[in-house]
Amino acid sequence: MRLLVLNSNNSEIVTGKVAPVARAAASPGTEIVAVTGTFGPRVIGTRAENALAEASTLALIARHGKDCDAAMIAVSYDTGLRAARELFSLPVVGMTEAGLLTACMLGGRIGIVTFGRRVLPLYQEVIESYGLASRVCAWRVVESAAAYRAGAHPELDQELIALANDLVQKDFAEVIIITGAVMAGVPARLQPQVPVPIVDCVVAGVRQAEMLASLRLPKPRAGSFAFPDGREVINVDPAIAAAFAGKGP
Amino acid sequence: MRLLVLNSNNSEIVTGKVAPVARAAASPGTEIVAVTGTFGPRVIGTRAENALAEASTLALIARHGKDCDAAMIAVSYDTGLRAARELFSLPVVGMTEAGLLTACMLGGRIGIVTFGRRVLPLYQEVIESYGLASRVCAWRVVESAAAYRAGAHPELDQELIALANDLVQKDFAEVIIITGAVMAGVPARLQPQVPVPIVDCVVAGVRQAEMLASLRLPKPRAGSFAFPDGREVINVDPAIAAAFAGKGP
Amino acid sequence: MRLLVLNSNNSEIVTGKVAPVARAAASPGTEIVAVTGTFGPRVIGTRAENALAEASTLALIARHGKDCDAAMIAVSYDTGLRAARELFSLPVVGMTEAGLLTACMLGGRIGIVTFGRRVLPLYQEVIESYGLASRVCAWRVVESAAAYRAGAHPELDQELIALANDLVQKDFAEVIIITGAVMAGVPARLQPQVPVPIVDCVVAGVRQAEMLASLRLPKPRAGSFAFPDGREVINVDPAIAAAFAGKGP
Amino acid sequence: MRLLVLNSNNSEIVTGKVAPVARAAASPGTEIVAVTGTFGPRVIGTRAENALAEASTLALIARHGKDCDAAMIAVSYDTGLRAARELFSLPVVGMTEAGLLTACMLGGRIGIVTFGRRVLPLYQEVIESYGLASRVCAWRVVESAAAYRAGAHPELDQELIALANDLVQKDFAEVIIITGAVMAGVPARLQPQVPVPIVDCVVAGVRQAEMLASLRLPKPRAGSFAFPDGREVINVDPAIAAAFAGKGP
Amino acid sequence: MRLLVLNSNNSEIVTGKVAPVARAAASPGTEIVAVTGTFGPRVIGTRAENALAEASTLALIARHGKDCDAAMIAVSYDTGLRAARELFSLPVVGMTEAGLLTACMLGGRIGIVTFGRRVLPLYQEVIESYGLASRVCAWRVVESAAAYRAGAHPELDQELIALANDLVQKDFAEVIIITGAVMAGVPARLQPQVPVPIVDCVVAGVRQAEMLASLRLPKPRAGSFAFPDGREVINVDPAIAAAFAGKGP
Amino acid sequence: MRLLVLNSNNSEIVTGKVAPVARAAASPGTEIVAVTGTFGPRVIGTRAENALAEASTLALIARHGKDCDAAMIAVSYDTGLRAARELFSLPVVGMTEAGLLTACMLGGRIGIVTFGRRVLPLYQEVIESYGLASRVCAWRVVESAAAYRAGAHPELDQELIALANDLVQKDFAEVIIITGAVMAGVPARLQPQVPVPIVDCVVAGVRQAEMLASLRLPKPRAGSFAFPDGREVINVDPAIAAAFAGKGP
Repeated sequence: MRLLVLNSNNSEIVTGKVAPVARAAASPGTEIVAVTGTFGPRVIGTRAENALAEASTLALIARHGKDCDAAMIAVSYDTGLRAARELFSLPVVGMTEAGLLTACMLGGRIGIVTFGRRVLPLYQEVIESYGLASRVCAWRVVESAAAYRAGAHPELDQELIALANDLVQKDFAEVIIITGAVMAGVPARLQPQVPVPIVDCVVAGVRQAEMLASLRLPKPRAGSFAFPDGREVINVDPAIAAAFAGKGP
Repeated sequence: MRLLVLNSNNSEIVTGKVAPVARAAASPGTEIVAVTGTFGPRVIGTRAENALAEASTLALIARHGKDCDAAMIAVSYDTGLRAARELFSLPVVGMTEAGLLTACMLGGRIGIVTFGRRVLPLYQEVIESYGLASRVCAWRVVESAAAYRAGAHPELDQELIALANDLVQKDFAEVIIITGAVMAGVPARLQPQVPVPIVDCVVAGVRQAEMLASLRLPKPRAGSFAFPDGREVINVDPAIAAAFAGKGP
Repeated sequence: MRLLVLNSNNSEIVTGKVAPVARAAASPGTEIVAVTGTFGPRVIGTRAENALAEASTLALIARHGKDCDAAMIAVSYDTGLRAARELFSLPVVGMTEAGLLTACMLGGRIGIVTFGRRVLPLYQEVIESYGLASRVCAWRVVESAAAYRAGAHPELDQELIALANDLVQKDFAEVIIITGAVMAGVPARLQPQVPVPIVDCVVAGVRQAEMLASLRLPKPRAGSFAFPDGREVINVDPAIAAAFAGKGP
Repeated sequence: MRLLVLNSNNSEIVTGKVAPVARAAASPGTEIVAVTGTFGPRVIGTRAENALAEASTLALIARHGKDCDAAMIAVSYDTGLRAARELFSLPVVGMTEAGLLTACMLGGRIGIVTFGRRVLPLYQEVIESYGLASRVCAWRVVESAAAYRAGAHPELDQELIALANDLVQKDFAEVIIITGAVMAGVPARLQPQVPVPIVDCVVAGVRQAEMLASLRLPKPRAGSFAFPDGREVINVDPAIAAAFAGKGP
Repeated sequence: MRLLVLNSNNSEIVTGKVAPVARAAASPGTEIVAVTGTFGPRVIGTRAENALAEASTLALIARHGKDCDAAMIAVSYDTGLRAARELFSLPVVGMTEAGLLTACMLGGRIGIVTFGRRVLPLYQEVIESYGLASRVCAWRVVESAAAYRAGAHPELDQELIALANDLVQKDFAEVIIITGAVMAGVPARLQPQVPVPIVDCVVAGVRQAEMLASLRLPKPRAGSFAFPDGREVINVDPAIAAAFAGKGP
Repeated sequence: MRLLVLNSNNSEIVTGKVAPVARAAASPGTEIVAVTGTFGPRVIGTRAENALAEASTLALIARHGKDCDAAMIAVSYDTGLRAARELFSLPVVGMTEAGLLTACMLGGRIGIVTFGRRVLPLYQEVIESYGLASRVCAWRVVESAAAYRAGAHPELDQELIALANDLVQKDFAEVIIITGAVMAGVPARLQPQVPVPIVDCVVAGVRQAEMLASLRLPKPRAGSFAFPDGREVINVDPAIAAAFAGKGP
């Protein structure tokens, strides 16, 4: 199968970190098609950027999803997830959604580490919108942009390990999630020093997307996720317009 | 004061229904600046359209909000509300948010009428995201596009009256909200035949926006609603880009 | 319009602090009628006092509300709010209710400062009863009676500023509420040193009461807020008895 | 032990129905002291009456509680419960609180029958304030004043049986509560025709009050239920004033 | 009446601590029948042990409940409570359930002390399953096995007193619960040094069980707590098999 | 990989229905090891049977899980799931847990069909314990034992189709779950006549178990899902005793 892994930002560096992790995580026979956004924010870190990137998610799937069996949004706000799930026929998962649902099968209390105080409320809103807020026991915040730089980040690693252990010790976390597409591959590196599972959301996203594709369930023909038939949109990305015209994947 | 009333859709007919109601609702001395979107959906009725219209909300405020004291999003999904509240300094309210908060002061149990089964989950998600789901006692759905046509709609009026009374009788609703910008002005017409208050969300939105403007509170300088300083966005509407560059209202 | 601002306590000093702030906050043309209770607690600070003051709220509106267009309960427990909303035809708001609903339009996470550990549970119960508990991110308690003394309170101001900033830093509060009618006017003084909006509940109460009056919605004729017709009460304040007899405002 | 059973209304007929049921329910050796209010509403059926009756609850306990070991509020809104629990040292329970907590040990899903559509929201607010809303699976409303008349009410009995069975059939209720002090003794009469337990709240209240008294726990010396020391109240019932002065039971 | 007090563990030492406290707590005329499990865990301290002990609860009631009027599960996870409530006709209460429901009548905010970090999530799940999570304000954990040793434990007592006071001071707890059957009798010893009531769950369990027995309510004949008629079980404890065959208490 | 699919009941007919569906659902290279319980209930349909079957789940994994990479509990109450997740090192999923989490990625509102009124509360408790109750929009109940008989069940199929469509029409369900291991394979048959996806929980369970195994996450070494080291259990199934002694899979 072919799995579209889309970075709705315009940050090739993040796509470059996500793609090899996605490839390593995929089942034998799964081809990863990794694409990067062409408009909107460089990196989503605010509410307004997130709003702009929703269209980017739709455009990327509309343009690259044709021969794919599923899509995984490699943006940790799961930007545009519900809209994509409605507009397209192929299954779509968000990396944070996939990570959270996977974590639900690994422990009861989920501890989360986010990058930056500013985005914490955004993640909380995402998680509440999934109805999963009661599963989250506590949060920790790292203020660091090191993850976006190339190379190893031993100091950041140590900080993440300390925070994860603190979540276990003080808040009884039984499974850990570290947000951020740029964190792809990092959990495996930290795991030996943390006594509970750390979910890599990109890995979970790839596997959950494969899982959804394997179910071969039909596109909904009723309800809020049915295809939005007969709607009129103007002055939008041509690929999105084509999708509204019924020519999307 | 000047109040920007923005219809993030491209539907002049809806703006045409909203504007006079907003003008009638405003305090003496308030000037209503009513604008309509130039890209995205004709009328938002699906998740994908709503995602596209978030940028429309940002573009309209960026372009027309300069001399305004507050903005009211005249789209009943409150499309782009949080993003606008972050990107801009002027106060922004959503019409449904304003209607709900106003309803909270008029009764305990809020009954809601929506147009179309398909959008009911979208409204529920909006209301849950405000933390107000527990105030809503029940929903009713009208399947009718009559509201978008010009002229009187006595049959639709009768149906709405019947549903509102049913909410009161069967579900103990103590205050009623009818969703949809196109419903501006309708509640006043129905009110004599319904024994509990019906909130007109456009009217509430105008008054709440005036109220926020009157408080003269500062733009947050911390947290997720502070201005998103130093962010990089590309290939977006020039007015939005200018707003990110700190030149927005 | 005339707005009744009622202090259900017997504390002229609090009324004296509330009234000028209410006047400054009101729209041009709004006359503030400030009244003080004549029985019950000097200052509400306990559950039993709050229970006694419910009748005081009813008596004050019954006696002074006749020519008023709306009433605002200037007691931060919103004492007697629902009862007043039922018994009278004029719109009634509580200052904390108004402050909370206003705060909902200024940020996502609300931080609250209360005066005294003992009353914190009372405020929590009030906020839960509004269905707004999920919007409150954290609480801080000041143990000080300085606010009830005349003159400036620079030490208390500094403590409040420190607590507000602590709510922002540690709990990601995006908007702050300081409880207590006696705090009227204080938020404006503290605001320059706090990076997120601080809502003055008396100011919000005045503006929300004006807003409700402007809507000219009918008194409910059904449900738990309809007038309690044909009820028999004995040995109560004559103004309250008159209100039950249908002669209230 | 002596158990004060207080009807905060001025309705001797209700006290007359409650007292013998309380006596029959009490343990050997428990003396029931049944008293009726002397001011406020004849029968509480609205929000404003309930507010007035809070003082009645305090006055009754202050006046009659001296030689009692516990008090049970025989008003189904549990009027004044928290205030009484704070002001007095003797244990106090509300009949609906006691009925609900007892029902929690008899089944998972609680079905409730109320008298009159108008009061349903009042009961919901009471139950939400106890944190027990999630245990209630459904409500039914009877519109009948028959219960306040003397003699048998076979028609009302049949309606109550039908509603209780409907709660079991349609809403999977596993235990039933019928609200209203005037219903004292009725559940036992209906029980043979209902396949799940029906809790008599007066019976549960008596037994829970006895239970609390048997624990001999100290009056809280901290928190919102500690005695409100040093508070000043004016122009209130002398017995209440004495209680505030530390001379209450 | 006869009250079966069952320890589903195989720990005579715990039964030895529970039984005298239960006897002292019981009403005059109540005989306590204290029994200990014969299979499964020595002491439940993990999820797997708790799962095994559910059958132990059923076996103990099946074998010893015949001449009893009620049963109280003296295991603080209330192991097997719902199953027992279904399989048997006699009333059954769990000690933690009883302690929590009793605490609800003594204060608003409940603080809980548990023994060991590991079991905290188990208690949280129990309390959430009762719908009472919102009543719990905070938790403290003691890491100590001293309670299982004979004799006095002054150091443990001091630690418990400190934690209880910390719950009062920092988290505004208004009533305290200390989990664990082995804690029977300890709360009374700590009470003088803690300013809010501490509920002894064994005492509460005995009294609530007596209370349920006194109500003489019928076994449900419908719903999920009706007797499981006509079910087939194999290779289980003979007493359990007999109970399924309708020969249980 | 080898996936243990365990039926904790003693019902070979159910295992016989589950096994081929599990095999068809599995990835290439996955071997399904299907086993059936040897003690406890024939078919779990009550609380007491469910309690007994928890040990059966533990015994089956202890005995058959040695060479397996993951286990899937093919009992729709997910009987013993958390206990198994603690006692064993191999990943364990419950079929209903897996179905629900998968459904979360297919729509917002989940509609559920259960077999028998009596078990509905049991499923609700399971789903609440996962924190997913807010995702479930409505329930329907089928009273039929046809599913346990061999051969086709066209009448039952028609009833299920009608209920699923009713959930879509009346309650806006966007994805459907039909509970019961015996329903394995049925959703695919009904799907063409239902306009939203129907999740086959056995299929989802197989795929989610494969997914978990692929993550190769470590067994928790802290918290309530760490191995229960040094615990003493007596008179239990020897395989379970061996697992407690550290010799389990």
